[in-house]
Amino acid sequence: MKKKPIEKLEELGFRVLEQIEKKTNPFLEIPIRSFSNIIYDEKTKKLILGEKTSKRYFLNIAHAKKFMQTLIIASKCKELLEENIHTSLRDMFYAVKRTLPNSNENTFDDQHKESDPIIEDLEVMLDVLREELHLNADIRGRVVGNVTIEDSGDIIHWDKLGSGGWAIPSNVEDIKFKRVEADFCLVVEKNAAWERLNEDKFWKKHNCILIGAQGQAARGIRRLIKRLNTEFNLPVYVFSDCDAYGWYIYSVIKAGSMNLAHTSEKLATPDAKFIGLTMSDITTYDLKKYTIKATQQDIKRATELLNYKWFQHPLWQRELKLMISKGYKAELEALTSKGFRFVSENYLPEKISKKDFLP
Amino acid sequence: MKKKPIEKLEELGFRVLEQIEKKTNPFLEIPIRSFSNIIYDEKTKKLILGEKTSKRYFLNIAHAKKFMQTLIIASKCKELLEENIHTSLRDMFYAVKRTLPNSNENTFDDQHKESDPIIEDLEVMLDVLREELHLNADIRGRVVGNVTIEDSGDIIHWDKLGSGGWAIPSNVEDIKFKRVEADFCLVVEKNAAWERLNEDKFWKKHNCILIGAQGQAARGIRRLIKRLNTEFNLPVYVFSDCDAYGWYIYSVIKAGSMNLAHTSEKLATPDAKFIGLTMSDITTYDLKKYTIKATQQDIKRATELLNYKWFQHPLWQRELKLMISKGYKAELEALTSKGFRFVSENYLPEKISKKDFLP
Repeated sequence: MKKKPIEKLEELGFRVLEQIEKKTNPFLEIPIRSFSNIIYDEKTKKLILGEKTSKRYFLNIAHAKKFMQTLIIASKCKELLEENIHTSLRDMFYAVKRTLPNSNENTFDDQHKESDPIIEDLEVMLDVLREELHLNADIRGRVVGNVTIEDSGDIIHWDKLGSGGWAIPSNVEDIKFKRVEADFCLVVEKNAAWERLNEDKFWKKHNCILIGAQGQAARGIRRLIKRLNTEFNLPVYVFSDCDAYGWYIYSVIKAGSMNLAHTSEKLATPDAKFIGLTMSDITTYDLKKYTIKATQQDIKRATELLNYKWFQHPLWQRELKLMISKGYKAELEALTSKGFRFVSENYLPEKISKKDFLP
Repeated sequence: MKKKPIEKLEELGFRVLEQIEKKTNPFLEIPIRSFSNIIYDEKTKKLILGEKTSKRYFLNIAHAKKFMQTLIIASKCKELLEENIHTSLRDMFYAVKRTLPNSNENTFDDQHKESDPIIEDLEVMLDVLREELHLNADIRGRVVGNVTIEDSGDIIHWDKLGSGGWAIPSNVEDIKFKRVEADFCLVVEKNAAWERLNEDKFWKKHNCILIGAQGQAARGIRRLIKRLNTEFNLPVYVFSDCDAYGWYIYSVIKAGSMNLAHTSEKLATPDAKFIGLTMSDITTYDLKKYTIKATQQDIKRATELLNYKWFQHPLWQRELKLMISKGYKAELEALTSKGFRFVSENYLPEKISKKDFLP
């Protein structure tokens, strides 16, 4: 039986209490999240945390404040769970910021340097997603497809949402899938391309779930993709720009991200495949005239990707080297030079039928 | 009888044809969109364009390329309307970019410098929104409330969408409102605050339409607000951060924006009121400890607002001067220091019942 997040929080409190009663110096043991402990796991194809941990002591002048902050946040999370309230990282910062009595010392002075990292500490210590502690991340994304879900008591048909689609919430943990009749899941980096595909009813014609990510996929989107992939065995195809940033967006969906390596187990979808845009597409579809000169920054980023362990597949090495040697990139909209419906009627169907994906 | 956008495009073409047949130098007459022709209309409380126009001639070496570009885009828009396709500004750029036969001259080389401005020229020349030419703007925003709409053949109940809400499309021109039972419309700058309010079912308890803007309201959101306000007489309240940027977001919803003054007629909602956060709130709700030091940039922006004609109301002058003299600002999340449900259970209901709004 898997422990509930609230039980994990209570255990954390009891452990500290026990240490105090035993008159030992209370401490928390926290897996290290820095670069030195981030590993690309070749077996699962995910970025994960290694085994290194650090101890945070109460009776240590360098640790005491962080120790206090950790317990304050843990206690506030327990309150969120008990009252069944979800909130944001920013709200949490304001909820825990106060001046300690008879002092000029604040519990917290900065969200990004203090409360956010403590929340990530709790995630790794307790092996939970912050969403399970009712702390919502950024909200973005929209979805349509042959799916019916239940959420907060409402039955929502993703195939009856007109031109807008369902706005993906930051937290998809409690969504119940009542009917999933799609054959695959197509994730589109750009919302404008998503709208074009939705207008052409691409998801109906090709029986897929169409997700618009609006750039880097927010955690809610990544968790939704992961759930559709693991719970319903749906293949996942990602469609982004042909540049180092678009390709990295894909890799975050697939393998996880470096600064959130501890969440990969729940957010990464190693099954995901890349449908385009590729450097090879530029030749195949005669798009040279619609490419953009790569900036120094683009080349630098592509060179970094070239060295990442999760970009070592020969096909990706080839793409990255092509980009660096040719010195250009392309946006997915370049395909519109062939016609407004080219993406939905030619490019994507051809790629899918030929299984022309990058790993 | 109002002319349809496609008829306006055809007229434009026929006018040019006529000029050619008369062997005169073909020209287009275009209202000027630069700062010198932007007026704040005290009567309608909107930013609008003045009467100044310029002529763009075919037989003028400085105008010829732009003349050609205008006709290319106009013709492509006609194609969009005839085929009933909607697309983005970026897609339009790729659709019209090509090299002229037997030359090295491209029709377009840059979206932001060339095709986008031509599209704005067409908007003012034809008195249409780009959305009416089927060119979609940025997509953002989500909505819930006691409303049922029809969109693309689907019946969508905004009160049955769980934690996510309806994703607002870029184009809300063709949405049919089947049932609007709300008493007012609350626009929230930040999506995280929107999620919190949605979780508390604020819209159900206070019978309102709850719109999350995710920063500066996209055109689709502004048009939706405008339609709800004018077609259903719904009051509109805007809730943003207490800083010059949050207040400007409000003013764009209310009066329009300077770079899109020609769209104010269709996008601005002069009826809108500002519900918070204000500098006075910081005192009323004892939030001083949760303020943030204003940066030089913040003060500079507030000083600019102080001089804008649409911020001349004494109450706004007072707020702006307070911000500049005190040298701090606050985020709407500061209210969370009073409790996670303080905004939905205290702050907003109090403000609404006391009609404590800024104009």
